[in-house]
Amino acid sequence: MEPDLTLKKQVVVIGAGFGGLSFIKALDDSSSQITLIDTHNYHTFSPLLYQVASAGLTAESIAHPARAAIRKSGATFLLDTVIDIEPDHNRVLLGSGERINYDTLVVAAGSVTADFGVKGAKEHTLGMKTIDEALLIRSKVMRALEDASRYGHHAVPIVIVGGGPTGVELAGALAELSKVLHKDFPELGPSALKVTLVEAGDRLLPMFPDSLSAVAKRDLIRRGVEVLTQGQVAEVTAKDVSLKGGRLLESNLTVWTAGVKGNSLGDILARHLGVSARRDGRIEVDGHCRPTGTSYPNIFVVGDLAARNEKGTILPMVAPVAMQMGRHVAALLKDPDHPELKYRDKGSMATIGRSDAVVWVGKIRISGLIAWLAWLGLHLAYLLGGRNRLQVVIDWGWNYLTYDRTARQILR
Amino acid sequence: MEPDLTLKKQVVVIGAGFGGLSFIKALDDSSSQITLIDTHNYHTFSPLLYQVASAGLTAESIAHPARAAIRKSGATFLLDTVIDIEPDHNRVLLGSGERINYDTLVVAAGSVTADFGVKGAKEHTLGMKTIDEALLIRSKVMRALEDASRYGHHAVPIVIVGGGPTGVELAGALAELSKVLHKDFPELGPSALKVTLVEAGDRLLPMFPDSLSAVAKRDLIRRGVEVLTQGQVAEVTAKDVSLKGGRLLESNLTVWTAGVKGNSLGDILARHLGVSARRDGRIEVDGHCRPTGTSYPNIFVVGDLAARNEKGTILPMVAPVAMQMGRHVAALLKDPDHPELKYRDKGSMATIGRSDAVVWVGKIRISGLIAWLAWLGLHLAYLLGGRNRLQVVIDWGWNYLTYDRTARQILR
Repeated sequence: MEPDLTLKKQVVVIGAGFGGLSFIKALDDSSSQITLIDTHNYHTFSPLLYQVASAGLTAESIAHPARAAIRKSGATFLLDTVIDIEPDHNRVLLGSGERINYDTLVVAAGSVTADFGVKGAKEHTLGMKTIDEALLIRSKVMRALEDASRYGHHAVPIVIVGGGPTGVELAGALAELSKVLHKDFPELGPSALKVTLVEAGDRLLPMFPDSLSAVAKRDLIRRGVEVLTQGQVAEVTAKDVSLKGGRLLESNLTVWTAGVKGNSLGDILARHLGVSARRDGRIEVDGHCRPTGTSYPNIFVVGDLAARNEKGTILPMVAPVAMQMGRHVAALLKDPDHPELKYRDKGSMATIGRSDAVVWVGKIRISGLIAWLAWLGLHLAYLLGGRNRLQVVIDWGWNYLTYDRTARQILR
Repeated sequence: MEPDLTLKKQVVVIGAGFGGLSFIKALDDSSSQITLIDTHNYHTFSPLLYQVASAGLTAESIAHPARAAIRKSGATFLLDTVIDIEPDHNRVLLGSGERINYDTLVVAAGSVTADFGVKGAKEHTLGMKTIDEALLIRSKVMRALEDASRYGHHAVPIVIVGGGPTGVELAGALAELSKVLHKDFPELGPSALKVTLVEAGDRLLPMFPDSLSAVAKRDLIRRGVEVLTQGQVAEVTAKDVSLKGGRLLESNLTVWTAGVKGNSLGDILARHLGVSARRDGRIEVDGHCRPTGTSYPNIFVVGDLAARNEKGTILPMVAPVAMQMGRHVAALLKDPDHPELKYRDKGSMATIGRSDAVVWVGKIRISGLIAWLAWLGLHLAYLLGGRNRLQVVIDWGWNYLTYDRTARQILR
């Protein structure tokens, strides 16, 4: 440590996700010394995890090194896990045993998969929140195809639970992978993966307008995905998924995208602050991303872990909210009179497959090729790192032109 | 299985390395049904493993899917491990319990790291023969840098045992990584990795002419590598490497590239054939790659596992020998009068770092930029898969122009 650091305001940021990095980038304040703590040495571009899981992109393409991301800010990076926050002592406790003091704390620890206690879900499903999980899904899919090719030549049944954007995008991508891999597994036919998408509600993409939900369903069915709405999962085993009502779905691999909840750090922080976290593990915050009903003005929560009620609606757990929250806290630290956060909804989009996506921005509702091109452009724009952007363009171009998926090596 | 397969000659190939794939590609015979068995679903381009270990390339770039590699041949692929060969029954036993019958068997199982029983080597060193090992080395290097940055700011000591091409290339690549990562770890200085290369003999690259060995040594030293020749390892612990004679080298990570031996399948096969494998685990073969002193004309051994004595010299364990052996066996199966294998030595090369390599082809001995360009071209030419070739060109170009290494995420 250089000696002058003690004169600087110590800002500790937990989490190198969209919220944490947006805060760091926006702060740009030479009187603060930022320390970023994350359990991984990279930022995960989670909107594209499903493409890693479906062999379209390598893990590295969507994982930007944390140190590269914060280089300009002069921030320090610590590869560690925060296991406790001590607001009365202005410090955090790390897995290594070390304690880090802060003047300002930004908790951007994100969310984890929520299985709502469904029997067998913890043991027999994979979430898709991390690079590790995405690589594991890819390896399990490829291994299941090898087994199917060898024993019996039947299609591999895969069940995806949850009809939100993640579930829809993974279902579409796996259905396409199935066709592409026909070259490798001709004996399995063009539908080597039998993908079933189960949604508890009565339509896919419940946050989208009805019309786009209907488009997503129609287009997934066209691609060979079985879509089950109003399908509530009763139990998951290693071999099948049983729905309430009695239907049994055979499943070699069950992916759980049906819910997320705040990282466990939310509960820990809430307890120390003397408030209770919401049932979904998130912490209620005010218009400046401070936990409501507490007296710790130097603690901010941003991103998925923060539940901000804006005009009666809780802001969703998506990247744009996290980024705007991160930037808001940075602006507030520079200007205490900065007005409250007003979330600017830039719309929602989900890709369904080759040349097909749904996009909803205010009154604009589009689907098909134009929506897909918009989806491509936006994801490229938000991807961190010029190298990763170049890489994803090359991979997408290659996959599009050759109907190939090159990242199908079993590495786990 | 289609019913007509029983009429075809069953050819079983063990191993999707250079030998096995060259055989399959060259056989191109519609009267044979080939089954390729490998423990991975990809071919590993082992000459570039050191670039995966040093964060220059992703694993996928040097791992070509096995099914794509054999697609044109109509061969069947089995993802499995061969645990026994039964020459008297013309069948192999797989890890899954299945037995596969063959009319012709090509054993191309390759080699594994040999630590010569040096104390602690098994527990405390990593080899560099597989993608898994290369990814593990990369993760350990990056994690060690994180620790060094956090605790004490000293350089990370890394010892590489073995001054052959693999050791020289890895040492040079890690020394360069060290400089490149200066941007991420400025507090560690430009020599964040303190690389020591230990060679038991009196010069590096013992298979090269003296003059090129001297160039390699000089250029590695210029890059900051400590080169210790006549350094025999007495013992390895988690913290250091002790040499005979008493010198103790601190080491956070010890990579063992000092020896290879035939895959254990060599011993198993030799026992069944009633011969003894050599001390290095390889099987002596005749000019047609048949095990010498046996009466099983339908069994061939090619690649690293085969020890062919040609005019008093055992052919080296390198990719060109494996490829020529594979092609030879294919030619022999098509023409029983095909003359014996005559190995055509196309020369040897090793890269030392940016714009620097040594190349030896007959009387030609070059080093520096021209040698490096030759090295680049040759490796690209031999890399399997158009996608991988494109990818490696892009990665090399990017790394060369930006002094960056983008594959530095800790994925293990």
